Amino acid sequence: MSDSSTRILGNSLTNLPWQDRPAGNGSVVWRYSANPVVPRSPIPECNSVFNSAVVPFQDKFAGVFRCDSTTLQQELHVGFSNDGFHWKLDPQAFRFSDSDAQAGKLAYGYDPRLGWVEDRFYITWCNDFHGPTIGIAWTKDFVTFHQLENALLPYNRNGVLFPRRIAGKYHLLSRPSDNSHTPFGDIFLSSSPDMIHWGCHRHVMSRGNSGWQRCKIGAGPVPIETTEGWLMFYHGVLNSCNGFVYSWGAALLDLDEPWKVVRSCRHYLMSPQEIYECVGDVPNVTFPTSALTDAETGRIALYYGCADTVTGLCFCTVSEVIEWLKTRGE
Amino acid sequence: MSDSSTRILGNSLTNLPWQDRPAGNGSVVWRYSANPVVPRSPIPECNSVFNSAVVPFQDKFAGVFRCDSTTLQQELHVGFSNDGFHWKLDPQAFRFSDSDAQAGKLAYGYDPRLGWVEDRFYITWCNDFHGPTIGIAWTKDFVTFHQLENALLPYNRNGVLFPRRIAGKYHLLSRPSDNSHTPFGDIFLSSSPDMIHWGCHRHVMSRGNSGWQRCKIGAGPVPIETTEGWLMFYHGVLNSCNGFVYSWGAALLDLDEPWKVVRSCRHYLMSPQEIYECVGDVPNVTFPTSALTDAETGRIALYYGCADTVTGLCFCTVSEVIEWLKTRGE
Amino acid sequence: MSDSSTRILGNSLTNLPWQDRPAGNGSVVWRYSANPVVPRSPIPECNSVFNSAVVPFQDKFAGVFRCDSTTLQQELHVGFSNDGFHWKLDPQAFRFSDSDAQAGKLAYGYDPRLGWVEDRFYITWCNDFHGPTIGIAWTKDFVTFHQLENALLPYNRNGVLFPRRIAGKYHLLSRPSDNSHTPFGDIFLSSSPDMIHWGCHRHVMSRGNSGWQRCKIGAGPVPIETTEGWLMFYHGVLNSCNGFVYSWGAALLDLDEPWKVVRSCRHYLMSPQEIYECVGDVPNVTFPTSALTDAETGRIALYYGCADTVTGLCFCTVSEVIEWLKTRGE
Amino acid sequence: MSDSSTRILGNSLTNLPWQDRPAGNGSVVWRYSANPVVPRSPIPECNSVFNSAVVPFQDKFAGVFRCDSTTLQQELHVGFSNDGFHWKLDPQAFRFSDSDAQAGKLAYGYDPRLGWVEDRFYITWCNDFHGPTIGIAWTKDFVTFHQLENALLPYNRNGVLFPRRIAGKYHLLSRPSDNSHTPFGDIFLSSSPDMIHWGCHRHVMSRGNSGWQRCKIGAGPVPIETTEGWLMFYHGVLNSCNGFVYSWGAALLDLDEPWKVVRSCRHYLMSPQEIYECVGDVPNVTFPTSALTDAETGRIALYYGCADTVTGLCFCTVSEVIEWLKTRGE
Amino acid sequence: MSDSSTRILGNSLTNLPWQDRPAGNGSVVWRYSANPVVPRSPIPECNSVFNSAVVPFQDKFAGVFRCDSTTLQQELHVGFSNDGFHWKLDPQAFRFSDSDAQAGKLAYGYDPRLGWVEDRFYITWCNDFHGPTIGIAWTKDFVTFHQLENALLPYNRNGVLFPRRIAGKYHLLSRPSDNSHTPFGDIFLSSSPDMIHWGCHRHVMSRGNSGWQRCKIGAGPVPIETTEGWLMFYHGVLNSCNGFVYSWGAALLDLDEPWKVVRSCRHYLMSPQEIYECVGDVPNVTFPTSALTDAETGRIALYYGCADTVTGLCFCTVSEVIEWLKTRGE
Amino acid sequence: MSDSSTRILGNSLTNLPWQDRPAGNGSVVWRYSANPVVPRSPIPECNSVFNSAVVPFQDKFAGVFRCDSTTLQQELHVGFSNDGFHWKLDPQAFRFSDSDAQAGKLAYGYDPRLGWVEDRFYITWCNDFHGPTIGIAWTKDFVTFHQLENALLPYNRNGVLFPRRIAGKYHLLSRPSDNSHTPFGDIFLSSSPDMIHWGCHRHVMSRGNSGWQRCKIGAGPVPIETTEGWLMFYHGVLNSCNGFVYSWGAALLDLDEPWKVVRSCRHYLMSPQEIYECVGDVPNVTFPTSALTDAETGRIALYYGCADTVTGLCFCTVSEVIEWLKTRGE
Repeated sequence: MSDSSTRILGNSLTNLPWQDRPAGNGSVVWRYSANPVVPRSPIPECNSVFNSAVVPFQDKFAGVFRCDSTTLQQELHVGFSNDGFHWKLDPQAFRFSDSDAQAGKLAYGYDPRLGWVEDRFYITWCNDFHGPTIGIAWTKDFVTFHQLENALLPYNRNGVLFPRRIAGKYHLLSRPSDNSHTPFGDIFLSSSPDMIHWGCHRHVMSRGNSGWQRCKIGAGPVPIETTEGWLMFYHGVLNSCNGFVYSWGAALLDLDEPWKVVRSCRHYLMSPQEIYECVGDVPNVTFPTSALTDAETGRIALYYGCADTVTGLCFCTVSEVIEWLKTRGE
Repeated sequence: MSDSSTRILGNSLTNLPWQDRPAGNGSVVWRYSANPVVPRSPIPECNSVFNSAVVPFQDKFAGVFRCDSTTLQQELHVGFSNDGFHWKLDPQAFRFSDSDAQAGKLAYGYDPRLGWVEDRFYITWCNDFHGPTIGIAWTKDFVTFHQLENALLPYNRNGVLFPRRIAGKYHLLSRPSDNSHTPFGDIFLSSSPDMIHWGCHRHVMSRGNSGWQRCKIGAGPVPIETTEGWLMFYHGVLNSCNGFVYSWGAALLDLDEPWKVVRSCRHYLMSPQEIYECVGDVPNVTFPTSALTDAETGRIALYYGCADTVTGLCFCTVSEVIEWLKTRGE
Repeated sequence: MSDSSTRILGNSLTNLPWQDRPAGNGSVVWRYSANPVVPRSPIPECNSVFNSAVVPFQDKFAGVFRCDSTTLQQELHVGFSNDGFHWKLDPQAFRFSDSDAQAGKLAYGYDPRLGWVEDRFYITWCNDFHGPTIGIAWTKDFVTFHQLENALLPYNRNGVLFPRRIAGKYHLLSRPSDNSHTPFGDIFLSSSPDMIHWGCHRHVMSRGNSGWQRCKIGAGPVPIETTEGWLMFYHGVLNSCNGFVYSWGAALLDLDEPWKVVRSCRHYLMSPQEIYECVGDVPNVTFPTSALTDAETGRIALYYGCADTVTGLCFCTVSEVIEWLKTRGE
Repeated sequence: MSDSSTRILGNSLTNLPWQDRPAGNGSVVWRYSANPVVPRSPIPECNSVFNSAVVPFQDKFAGVFRCDSTTLQQELHVGFSNDGFHWKLDPQAFRFSDSDAQAGKLAYGYDPRLGWVEDRFYITWCNDFHGPTIGIAWTKDFVTFHQLENALLPYNRNGVLFPRRIAGKYHLLSRPSDNSHTPFGDIFLSSSPDMIHWGCHRHVMSRGNSGWQRCKIGAGPVPIETTEGWLMFYHGVLNSCNGFVYSWGAALLDLDEPWKVVRSCRHYLMSPQEIYECVGDVPNVTFPTSALTDAETGRIALYYGCADTVTGLCFCTVSEVIEWLKTRGE
Repeated sequence: MSDSSTRILGNSLTNLPWQDRPAGNGSVVWRYSANPVVPRSPIPECNSVFNSAVVPFQDKFAGVFRCDSTTLQQELHVGFSNDGFHWKLDPQAFRFSDSDAQAGKLAYGYDPRLGWVEDRFYITWCNDFHGPTIGIAWTKDFVTFHQLENALLPYNRNGVLFPRRIAGKYHLLSRPSDNSHTPFGDIFLSSSPDMIHWGCHRHVMSRGNSGWQRCKIGAGPVPIETTEGWLMFYHGVLNSCNGFVYSWGAALLDLDEPWKVVRSCRHYLMSPQEIYECVGDVPNVTFPTSALTDAETGRIALYYGCADTVTGLCFCTVSEVIEWLKTRGE
Repeated sequence: MSDSSTRILGNSLTNLPWQDRPAGNGSVVWRYSANPVVPRSPIPECNSVFNSAVVPFQDKFAGVFRCDSTTLQQELHVGFSNDGFHWKLDPQAFRFSDSDAQAGKLAYGYDPRLGWVEDRFYITWCNDFHGPTIGIAWTKDFVTFHQLENALLPYNRNGVLFPRRIAGKYHLLSRPSDNSHTPFGDIFLSSSPDMIHWGCHRHVMSRGNSGWQRCKIGAGPVPIETTEGWLMFYHGVLNSCNGFVYSWGAALLDLDEPWKVVRSCRHYLMSPQEIYECVGDVPNVTFPTSALTDAETGRIALYYGCADTVTGLCFCTVSEVIEWLKTRGE
């Protein structure tokens, strides 16, 4: 039990991967000391593994990983871990057991998010459908995967589902984009009665309330339900004279009307500062995509992409993040 | 009755505005000899009237007009006509009797399309919702207008509804865009069970099968149901060294699966050649947005924007357009 | 005497060129019926004459004209007129009797403004000094011209002097720019005790309060002193998909603190609509640069560049312009 | 015989199309009073005819015309005329009797030049070979055409052959480009012993010695041999805030070392000023591509593209052009 | 006393931070072995400290530091040091005791320079006034700071004052810019009788005499008066395919007419080569902003920003720098 | 003798620099353990040495090195080595004993390739001739160098000669470019009877068959003749949001018709992963330019530029590379 009144509304996860905050470290978020937790090339003909999504699965952990091959093809691979630290990836890229041909074949897939909604795991990712848009699929066993209709028209990225229905409907965050290295972008919310048709679009949050998120923003892991609201980690981008810098922060969304921002941050929680975050295929990227949580302790283990090359792991607690939002946010 | 077996599936419209093809004119489409049919500034503080949508209404005609004011604010105005040639525009811009505040206020509105679906007139237009997207509203009397949820996320333009449900669902054409003078764009189709939630997105047609439509394309008037398929007029854009040139052509879509192109054109039907199409606020634009049809004769009267400044009118017959698609299209 | 209480604070000018408003014309500003008042090529090897500045001089009129030669060199020429309608231009480009070599030679000169301040005529123009900036010179006789130091650092355009000292200092409007076809720009004010050193920079007016002035704005003729404030005509630019469109409007500035906008317009007073404004070297340009005024009647005759090719003339009265600002402005 | 000592070194052409200089016209070049000499759409499904090349042929005239179809496909058509004023174009696009498949099929062809070299007519044009480059073909009868190897690597435009060998080699002017609306470009010269292999590349002339040719330049008609050197007409481009403006001038090249500029112009000879030059698919274009000459009289009839839409004709004499180059050029 | 005849005209500074040149190092400038001298985050919620300005103050050292907060807000902080190596920064950002509201509030401040002129310390920095321009303030005690009028109109950066009046006037170097990541820029000089009004603008130095300074240049520390002229260190920028690279060199300016370059360098003195210069928020930046000098020994300790992330320190002697300018410069 | 039937058709080179593949390394190509083999600044006033070309010479090795000086001037220097690992560079830049002035002086030279053709060594490089193009020179002794005509018109880069005539003609690979940081580019082939005139241009290979080569490609070392075809190593570029990433792969070209690709790779052989490849003047560059081969063993030692800063060395065998092309290529 967290010693704060702020609690995660969810399950306990006693085997959540965890490392205590190093002595003398005053940050709300701290990095795993053995980062990167997934190296650059853990399987053959793999250029990089990053922007990956993991969940508790059968007392252990499963995940969907963005692996760029040595052809620089962006593909999704399944992976498993006993402890959340050591991952074994399937050397074969992800294929669907069935899919609607009209929705377009899986030409590429990147930046997956993964979450349990009601009775199964849903995966959302950036799917190629005459441009990038948000693909949706589900699995119950991480063996067979079933692709649904693409949720949205192109051009879109960073589609993230809420982990339960709200007011009877599914809810999906996304970031409308253009068809290239989009130099703008806000977070929107859409809802659906059937996971197929989406509407009632709402604007959630604008880029730009501070320098590190001036250019564009996008939702990260599946939002975490807390007593204070939905805790959404998200990345923000600064457009320097030498390219994009990806940092990340957090916001609290209203539990019932999640397009209403209860509290947002002005400071980043993490920016690229370690060598494996600053140097790689895309320098200066920290990009959070999934979080494991333990409602019992309030602990959060967050996986994030580093320099579009390797996968990092870091830690925080829900009470400290929300306290920080309350005292240092707006 | 047309002398061809190709017929419009719809109502007769005996007072359709019409002018016979001039002697010696060998084109499939010919212009109204007194163009522009709506002048630049028919109401006070009006800079231009173009890209406007009209329908038969109570034995006469009604329409929704894009009027750019002398502030260059893009606004929608209602207008009425006894004969389709002479229009009287409401000097007040369009306001909604009710609207969902979440959908965003009507900051601007442009490029409306208008059609009867089931039991009422629906208007779609380019609506400001943190960027351009597709707004929807309905009216039964052209006095009160009711705004629905925006159909799609930004950034989108050229939203056009089909005039009836297909396989039980509403269908909407659109052209995903970026947030500025988009230099690319294809036509997509989305469908909805309730006019609120949209999904099952399909790619309909790509830009670029010939030079005049190399840069981007977008649907024009509400598709016309014919014995050969849905007749869709659409504009195409060429990106010359001196800017965009907007021409237009036609395609036939499958009646039951309207994302399937039965026949498309390689040649344009019209390009900017008259002085009122070549000179104006945006030189070199012909942009079709609405069509009146008479099923009895197969006649089509088509309204199109000229140089983003005035409104033109032109004529053709369904049998000749479809014959042309069959013999000269692909 | 104007029949309104609004008056020009200045001299009467009984021979001001004038043409009454045409019957049925409801506009605040109306065009000279024989426009262009200066044709394209009135002197040898001249490509175009536009963006020119005129003043009353010895009971007649004198002016400084932007003439682009058939080398497309931008040069200034002196011209004279008996009536303000018929102009005789010096076929030789403008040369200075003396100038400070440090200020840079006159590599090019364009878009001059001209006004009487205290005891002489001052000319400001866009001068080449390692990029465009604001040059200043004076004359008493239109025969000898004396160049002063450039007022400002590059990159700047549209420098316009106030016709008298305010609070003991000279005042200069300008529009900071970049070194090419600047896609942004606001109006600023600087002041000087000696016409050499400039400081106390103030921001006067932002682009963008309506569509026709969304991209950039710049001051036009020398401000006209009125009982209501300084009347500043200024151009605004819209950036369409086919290029810039230059329209113009007006604002009232505080008499004592002229960086304070008393009243500004939302609608334009004129936009390019006549063929000589829409077609030419730079299509769609109306660009006001000088005005003659008669305090007795409140009449204003305003010269403006058309399509960067010829010079137009138009008319209005101070009382109607200010009435329009009060009722239709903000 | 010209009354000047400057003479064209070539044949007489007694039936050269000609119209005397209008009274009061002081220009070196004057336009045909019935321009455009070839209208927009003289054959079916033709959008425009411009940038065309003609030669004397069997006591009459033959030519190769750039016709953009109503698909906006850029194609070449053959045409014939009895008098040089009235042209009859073949409604079928140009096809080669034989061609080296390796050189690439004729995907598109535009901006042809045409000239007699030694024993046959050679056509050069902008050919599609993984980007624009210079194609070469020959004919003796305007019935069968034989394509040679592409002369140069992409990306290149405006390839123009000299009408005879110089120092034993063929010579080709060209303008290296990029793969889009190239914003830069100078004229270069290459030579060949066999019309297949090209080398000894020389830089002939830089853009930018005056404003109208600041952006890029390119050779026009086949150079005309005169007693003073090769007379090369060429176009120059100004990049205004509203797009490219194409004017043209002339230069004299050394007879033996034609990469040496003997005399070049600072002023243009023609800029877009007539409505058919200012308004069309690409506003503000005058683009010379071929010239007929009569050595006996020194008369030159020059064909030029207007607004990328129609073909214009204009006239001058060799002695006046060269006199103008000597007195007004540099 | 330097063993060369070249001397700094100034005070001795016996406690100047210093480290001898490492054995075997043949460079004119050598780095402090314990760089960075100021780490990334010496105060709470600080992202980076770089581009900072220091002076001798009360037998110790004081400075104004650019600290980007973890909101990426660019702020100025005061700092103090006993030895020039170890700095203690005020955790509160800089505020003015008084300022002219018209000059604009301190929305952001970056890249300060700091120098003693006559009787007080003046700070110049890049100030937000409807775009970046040059702010000026003064202090006598580093406790209260007094803001003056902005010296120049936007858009400007790298404003640097000379340490004494020249010919009775204050002198200010600056680099006119645009409103974004300016891809061009030269050094100009302006002068003022009163530190308020600026004029007599002079062009000092162009970018581009060698590759490392091809894109833009800007003055660094307050110029150092020497027997040979004003020694100006300045940065230069190369625009590679992967972004800007900031190196730096030196020039000598005439003592009396400081817009005249006596001697300039072709080689850089330092380019980004150490890991803390190559990796950080903006890779590949070395940016000199302040120098401490000892007239007795000719020693110079120079502070420079590294990768827009940390602050570096390096050393040289005036005699060697000027000798290098004489032998290797131009 | 290689234990595969695939053999290099060439000479044995018993002193080829070599290092066995590290245990556990499964890659086709492995790096030299002491990379970089040439450091950043081996000679005075040298900023970097990279993209260099070496050959066996008189039982030792000679080479032409791209050295960027500390002025960032791109120059070529000669160098010699006894073992291929340790290089001694001439501190003086390369000068020609003779050259045709018409071909342009050597303003800059970069990215040389070097090979023996028939009876001498030919050097090709990126030469400044009113823009980048392909220079050619020859030497027999690495003391005197003779410049020939530039092979091609600008704008071109990456010119690479085949090591023998094919069908009686010399053959040259190149990559047509634009005049800046070209964002596109394919490999073409031209042939010549005399090393002066080039024609019969063929398209060899398009960019884009996989992600790492999506933006542009260019030939690397002189092609290696093998029993399976010409082995061409080449670089490919990915355009990330933070700039270009240069990786490299290989292809087999037909021995007799070398514009025909027999086999190409989809995966890269090397991408920037080591710190000296990821960090430097241009981050993330590996750029192969020369290879030493031993026909006896099939060993290849390949030199490549690292981050445009230092020179790397790596190793592979012809049989493994071709086996990899056959099994993993297309």
